[in-house]
Amino acid sequence: MLYKRNPQLNKNGELIHLLSIEGLPKSIVTQILDTAANFVSVSDREVKKVPLLRGKSVFNLFFENSTRTRTTFEIAAKRLSADVINLDIARSSTAKGETLLDTIANLSAMAADLFVVRHSESGAPYLIAQHVAPHVHVINAGDGRHAHPTQGLLDMYTIRHYKKDFSNLTVAIVGDVLHSRVARSDIHALTTLGVAEVRVVGPRTLVPGDLAPMGVKVFHKLEEGIKDCDVVIMLRLQNERMSGALLPSSQEYFKTYGLTPEKLQLAKPDAIVMHPGPINRGVEIASEVVDGKQSVILPQVTFGIAVRMAVMSIVAGNEA
Amino acid sequence: MLYKRNPQLNKNGELIHLLSIEGLPKSIVTQILDTAANFVSVSDREVKKVPLLRGKSVFNLFFENSTRTRTTFEIAAKRLSADVINLDIARSSTAKGETLLDTIANLSAMAADLFVVRHSESGAPYLIAQHVAPHVHVINAGDGRHAHPTQGLLDMYTIRHYKKDFSNLTVAIVGDVLHSRVARSDIHALTTLGVAEVRVVGPRTLVPGDLAPMGVKVFHKLEEGIKDCDVVIMLRLQNERMSGALLPSSQEYFKTYGLTPEKLQLAKPDAIVMHPGPINRGVEIASEVVDGKQSVILPQVTFGIAVRMAVMSIVAGNEA
Amino acid sequence: MLYKRNPQLNKNGELIHLLSIEGLPKSIVTQILDTAANFVSVSDREVKKVPLLRGKSVFNLFFENSTRTRTTFEIAAKRLSADVINLDIARSSTAKGETLLDTIANLSAMAADLFVVRHSESGAPYLIAQHVAPHVHVINAGDGRHAHPTQGLLDMYTIRHYKKDFSNLTVAIVGDVLHSRVARSDIHALTTLGVAEVRVVGPRTLVPGDLAPMGVKVFHKLEEGIKDCDVVIMLRLQNERMSGALLPSSQEYFKTYGLTPEKLQLAKPDAIVMHPGPINRGVEIASEVVDGKQSVILPQVTFGIAVRMAVMSIVAGNEA
Repeated sequence: MLYKRNPQLNKNGELIHLLSIEGLPKSIVTQILDTAANFVSVSDREVKKVPLLRGKSVFNLFFENSTRTRTTFEIAAKRLSADVINLDIARSSTAKGETLLDTIANLSAMAADLFVVRHSESGAPYLIAQHVAPHVHVINAGDGRHAHPTQGLLDMYTIRHYKKDFSNLTVAIVGDVLHSRVARSDIHALTTLGVAEVRVVGPRTLVPGDLAPMGVKVFHKLEEGIKDCDVVIMLRLQNERMSGALLPSSQEYFKTYGLTPEKLQLAKPDAIVMHPGPINRGVEIASEVVDGKQSVILPQVTFGIAVRMAVMSIVAGNEA
Repeated sequence: MLYKRNPQLNKNGELIHLLSIEGLPKSIVTQILDTAANFVSVSDREVKKVPLLRGKSVFNLFFENSTRTRTTFEIAAKRLSADVINLDIARSSTAKGETLLDTIANLSAMAADLFVVRHSESGAPYLIAQHVAPHVHVINAGDGRHAHPTQGLLDMYTIRHYKKDFSNLTVAIVGDVLHSRVARSDIHALTTLGVAEVRVVGPRTLVPGDLAPMGVKVFHKLEEGIKDCDVVIMLRLQNERMSGALLPSSQEYFKTYGLTPEKLQLAKPDAIVMHPGPINRGVEIASEVVDGKQSVILPQVTFGIAVRMAVMSIVAGNEA
Repeated sequence: MLYKRNPQLNKNGELIHLLSIEGLPKSIVTQILDTAANFVSVSDREVKKVPLLRGKSVFNLFFENSTRTRTTFEIAAKRLSADVINLDIARSSTAKGETLLDTIANLSAMAADLFVVRHSESGAPYLIAQHVAPHVHVINAGDGRHAHPTQGLLDMYTIRHYKKDFSNLTVAIVGDVLHSRVARSDIHALTTLGVAEVRVVGPRTLVPGDLAPMGVKVFHKLEEGIKDCDVVIMLRLQNERMSGALLPSSQEYFKTYGLTPEKLQLAKPDAIVMHPGPINRGVEIASEVVDGKQSVILPQVTFGIAVRMAVMSIVAGNEA
């Protein structure tokens, strides 16, 4: 990043904001996963309500609309007994000409404790974290194409849950990597946790050219890319972010890069299939795979609540 | 309904979803009314806050906007100490091409406990109830023209409150029955509870032809329909659901089917007047009647909170 | 006002609604400020969570959108442990032709305890207060150009915090007084609390002609108006409320009425600068002043939470 000191950590190396997995030490990533494990009960279904953030105010600042992500943070915060304030930022004072930083300063002054920020501009949560009062912690809930760190962390939680150890794993990330902040966060997390091999699979138009320095192997054929993998992470084809030239037809894309039961047989027999959602059935993934035995797509959602509880409770407990 | 086993009940005959009053045994309807009575305090005004759903998550899934109904469920859930998540479904992932069932599966995976569903398509809550995880309970908050069971139940609560016993009652449902899910739910509930006579009153264009098998007497003259009734349920003229041909002018409609103080004198002297709201004053009902001594329209609203608390606490307590 | 008895007070002279500072006795204003002081902790930052409104329902009725003000009331209510219901009134039953008073009667019947009302029509909160059930308390969160009493009270709290005593103060209110409900509330509050001098400063087009009876001195030159002042309250240029003829260009306005560091030197050396927000930097106030040592704009926001907690807890504790 562009900063001398990692803006996510305080002087003691403790997490005070979660802006990106890039630059997080392995110990912090592991601390988050371990903490999340405490929030997932033995029954694998019930996430307990705990008073860890009782009396704290969590502000959901969604400059870009995302009901799904906002909801997971809202649930996580309420399970920690926090008060949650949802701000419909698009309709608020920013519309009256107030600057982003003035809006942020005002919300800080309302004695906020946590800002959960989704923004269409890459880097916005960094800007905010630099300007909040010391008592406010910032969590990036997705900024532009840059990062979606809690998604990356819940993906890691899911992999650890099913595979126990990262060191011998081969993980393939398949599809529209170019527009995917999830892919970026996953690559950083997998590298940090020391998996054996990270692969990126997709058409030349949808795989950025700058991935080699990240220690990633690039494949353009799905069959080659997922061969003998332990984990296959399918990405959503983000039609809504593409202009005409780049946009493949759904049928064509499915034929080449769609994950079908037949193609999945090329991966290891116990490979798991993940997807950050929302799913385009029959575009990047066949319905039979979504609903099949190797799919862990719904457990990802469940673990996502626990991981967000973990991140919130950790940052709120550390002083700037 | 189309199902072999009643999808609303578990193997022990206990309520696990509330989808429609049709097919509910009288014992369950009575259980709901009795439970609601516990939530209405002696003073008739204060509905107590109780910890029955503490730590549970209630998701308001309003695919069709209804601030009023959503608010009553939100209040009921909060008075049971549940966490409430309002989902602006119209703007969410469904807009990104996700199927209804994938949205539902995702929300289930967030460890939801209760879905309160309002949908413009008849039957949507049934579809959802068939596909949710076993730990999720579904409450129909109105689906198309089909049913609005909590409105039906609060109407029954109101009638029981003022009339004590159902068996000797004559109840008239007046107005736009064709477009009214409330009318349908009321008819099923009144029949289940064994009232002496259920009447439906309205113009030929607004009364469906298939009511005879439901044990209902049809009238086309208001004066005849409400004669000697104990209860008059006025329906809202749903202009917003009608196309040009069907749509009567408000003045004309009021002249023929509007309930005035004079016409109300044809009912029993102690008859009560109900309305599900929102009211069109001077269209289906005169202001003098709305604000008059026989009107129990506002008590309906108050009882509605208690009835929704009852339904939520009952279904959440029963295992699928 | 138009009422014989002050509709804000009960027979014992206790506050039951907060509709305007006009007509409030000094003792009530002081009670609010003293109560707010209890909600601001010693550290000047943490506003405590208290169970004073536990089990009570606060309805945010924003007929006019204002995310900022709605948020401050929501936080204040949650810090008092109330349940908060946000109503998107513009999309609700009023759109279905229901009258304002029927909407209010319905919400009252849901066992509401507090209505926080923002409305574009002056006087709407008065109308509502006259028609709610006795158990409902109404707080005006801004009505048309008429009043914004909680803003007025938080301004008084801020002044008292920094200046201790009101009696020797000279306070200048600068800018678009014509469109400002804040200005009106501030003038009433300052007069009630007995400041030495209240000044209003602005162009002839933006200063109403009827201020003399309120005991206010009018200035049309900024330099004269803020000379030797203890407090300078800058108002937002409400471009969005002005038609073409009235609308000065931002640059022109800044040149004549914008508060710069140079002009601020005309006030007393320890003068404080206030602004209700949202700020137009470089229009009514220079950035250097906003971020400068004399600015207490962000403390205003913090105190605003405590003042709203005070108002809510006081009115909810008094019987109609």
